Amino acid sequence: MAEIADVVVAGGGVIGTAIAWRAAAAGLDVVLVDPEAGDAASLVAAGMLAPASEALFGEGALLRLNLLAVRRFGSFAAELEEATGHQVGLRREGTLAVAYDPGDYAALIRLTAFRRSAGLDAEELDSRACRQLEPFLTPDVHGGVLFADDWSVDNRRYAAALREAARAAKVRGVRDRVLEVRVRAGQARGVRLADGGDIDAARVVVAAGCWSGGVAGLPEALRTVIRPVKGQLLRLRHPASVPPVIGRTIRAIVRGTDVYLVPRADGELVVGATQEERGPDQTVTAGAVHDLLHDAMSVLPVTSELILAETCAGLRPGTPDNGPVVGWCGPDGLLLATGHYRNGILMSPVTADAALALLAGQAPAPEWEPFTPGRFTGEDGSR
Amino acid sequence: MAEIADVVVAGGGVIGTAIAWRAAAAGLDVVLVDPEAGDAASLVAAGMLAPASEALFGEGALLRLNLLAVRRFGSFAAELEEATGHQVGLRREGTLAVAYDPGDYAALIRLTAFRRSAGLDAEELDSRACRQLEPFLTPDVHGGVLFADDWSVDNRRYAAALREAARAAKVRGVRDRVLEVRVRAGQARGVRLADGGDIDAARVVVAAGCWSGGVAGLPEALRTVIRPVKGQLLRLRHPASVPPVIGRTIRAIVRGTDVYLVPRADGELVVGATQEERGPDQTVTAGAVHDLLHDAMSVLPVTSELILAETCAGLRPGTPDNGPVVGWCGPDGLLLATGHYRNGILMSPVTADAALALLAGQAPAPEWEPFTPGRFTGEDGSR
Repeated sequence: MAEIADVVVAGGGVIGTAIAWRAAAAGLDVVLVDPEAGDAASLVAAGMLAPASEALFGEGALLRLNLLAVRRFGSFAAELEEATGHQVGLRREGTLAVAYDPGDYAALIRLTAFRRSAGLDAEELDSRACRQLEPFLTPDVHGGVLFADDWSVDNRRYAAALREAARAAKVRGVRDRVLEVRVRAGQARGVRLADGGDIDAARVVVAAGCWSGGVAGLPEALRTVIRPVKGQLLRLRHPASVPPVIGRTIRAIVRGTDVYLVPRADGELVVGATQEERGPDQTVTAGAVHDLLHDAMSVLPVTSELILAETCAGLRPGTPDNGPVVGWCGPDGLLLATGHYRNGILMSPVTADAALALLAGQAPAPEWEPFTPGRFTGEDGSR
Repeated sequence: MAEIADVVVAGGGVIGTAIAWRAAAAGLDVVLVDPEAGDAASLVAAGMLAPASEALFGEGALLRLNLLAVRRFGSFAAELEEATGHQVGLRREGTLAVAYDPGDYAALIRLTAFRRSAGLDAEELDSRACRQLEPFLTPDVHGGVLFADDWSVDNRRYAAALREAARAAKVRGVRDRVLEVRVRAGQARGVRLADGGDIDAARVVVAAGCWSGGVAGLPEALRTVIRPVKGQLLRLRHPASVPPVIGRTIRAIVRGTDVYLVPRADGELVVGATQEERGPDQTVTAGAVHDLLHDAMSVLPVTSELILAETCAGLRPGTPDNGPVVGWCGPDGLLLATGHYRNGILMSPVTADAALALLAGQAPAPEWEPFTPGRFTGEDGSR
C-alpha cells in the first residue's frame, strides 16, 4: 500500500530539508525521501554566506539573488534556532580577501570595482592594514579588500538543525532513493522508490542536488542540465596550545588560485575548495589536499601547526550558467529545486520561500525570474 | 583472584605479540596485556625491511643487527603464514634510493660508500636508468642507487597475522594496561593492571614501545631512556583508472629531506615519514601532510592523482643511541624488549628469538651484545 502525503520531497540536503520544514510548518503533510542521512554536498560545504566576496563578472542576476539570500538568512536562522534550541554558528565578521602577489592584487582590484558598481561595500587595505586585522597573515601578502557584510554559518550545525526542525514539524523521513516521478494524465501523482514502494502525492519536489537529473519523469532537457562539480576541502582544528589563528573568513588569491579559510567558534577552520569536472567522483586526492594546504600555508603560515582533522569531497549541483533551477516543470505538480552549485547553504532559506510561494499558487520573489527551469526547456513555467 | 601464567607480556605491538607467540609455541603459558587492540606504532609503520638503504654513519652495530634481522625475516614470515594461512605481503623488489638535486646526490653517494664498506650491495644509476626502473619518476631526479636486497612487508597484515598466530597458540589476551611489575625479594612476581587486578608470573616481558618507561618497577635509569619519536605517514590508494605507479620501494632525498614510498600488492602506497620530537602527541598536522605530499610529488608527480585514503601518526620508541634495548634488567625475571625506534617491524623476529633464548637461560645472538639494558644501567645483564 502506498504512503500518502500532500508533498513528497526527493533529497534531504539543506535545500530539500528547508523546503520540507517550511511546508510542514505551513500545515502540509510532507514526506522527505533521501537514501542517506542526507546532504552529502551540504556537509562538505564551508558555509560562507558571501555574496560580496563571491560575486563574479557576468553574474549580475545571480548576485541579486545572493543578496536577497543573505538578507533573508538572518531571520531564517533565528527562526530555526528558536524552533530547535540549537545554535547554527552564524558569524558576521565579514571576509578579508587578500592577494598574494601583484598579479593576484590586480585581479582582486578589478573584481572589487565590479562589486562596488553593484552597490557592495568594499574597503581596500594595504599589506600592513591586512595584518592589523589578521596578525598571522604572512607579510608577503600584497594587499587585500575587506567585505564587511559577508557572513558565515556552521554548515553542519545548520543542516542538523534543519533536520531537527523538520522532524519537530512532523515531516516523515523515508530512507530510500526516488527512482521516478509518477505521472498520470499530465499530473504528478507521487514517486516510485528504489525499493519498489510508492508514495502518493499531488505535489513532488525534486531537490536531489547533482543527482536530480537521475530522477525519471523530469523533462529530458532538464535531466542533462545538472552536472556534479567536485569540491574537496579540509577541516583543521587548533591544538590546545594554539590560539584562534584568524578572526574572520579569509579568501586568498595565491598565484591565480582561490583558497578560503573559514573559522568556527569551536576552533574548527575549514579550508576549501577545489572545483573539478570529474563526474560523480567523490575521492579525496593527494594533489588536491596538497594544493589546498600549500595555498593556505602561503598566506597563513601558521596553518602548518594545525591538526588536519578531516579531508572530504562533495558534489555540487552545477548548471550551464552557474545559477539554480527552481520552479514548476514538466507535469503539473512537479517542482524542481536544485542547481545551487556553490551557494546551496546561502540560498536554502530563499529557496524554501520560493518553493512555498509556488506550492501556494503564488509567484516567488522577482529575483528568481532568471532562474526558472523554463530557461532550459523553453516553457514559461507558469501554472 | 590473580590470573597465573608462566610469562606475562606487557605490550601488544609486533614486538610483544611476536614474543608471546613464540613463547606459547615453545610450550609456555603466556598472557599478553595491552590496553587497545594493540600496536599503535606497528600499525602506523610502512613495513620497510631495509637495512641497506637505512644504514647511517656511526650505526655499525645497529646495521649488523638489522642485517641479522632481514636474513631472519623470510623464514619467520613463512612460518607465520604457515601457522595462520594469511599472507603478510612480503616483497623482495629492493629499494631505489633517488636524489632530487646535486646536493642530495652527493649525500646519497657518501652514504652509499659507507654502506658498501659494510658489505652491502648497491648499484649507482643515472637519472635515465632510474626512470627505466621506475618510469613515473620525474626527469628532474639527479640520480639514484639501487639496493636490491631490501624487502618490505605489509605491516598491518603482518601485525594481524601475529595476533592470529598468538591466539592460535593459546596466548591469553587481556585488554588492560600494566601499571607496574610486582617484585618480591628481588624477583619479579607478575604485574599489576590499571583496573586493579594482578597477574602472577615469574617472568615479565615489558614490550610496551614508547610507553615502556611508564611501567613502575623498571630500573629508574631505564624509565627515562625511552622517548616517543612521532612519525606521521600517509596511505594512498590507486584509483581504478591508474596503474601501479611504482614497482618497488622508492626512497628520495628532496633538498635534504627524506621521504619514502612503499607499494603494496593491493594497490596501497605508503608515504612516510616525519620524525618529530614532540612528546606523546599523536595528532596529524597540516604541515606534515603538506610536506610529505610535496616531497612525494617532487619525485613522483603522479602521486597527485592518487587517493589520500588515510593520514596517521604514531610514536616510535626511541633511545639515545637509536638502538633497541633487549635483555634482563632490575629484578630477576624482568625482561625488557623495546627501543626499536624505526626498526620494530624488521626486528620483531630476531627480538622474539632473543627473548626466547633469554627465557630459556641461553645467550641471544652475538649481534645483540651492544643492545642490552646494561649499557644504560651499568649492570652486565647476565642472570
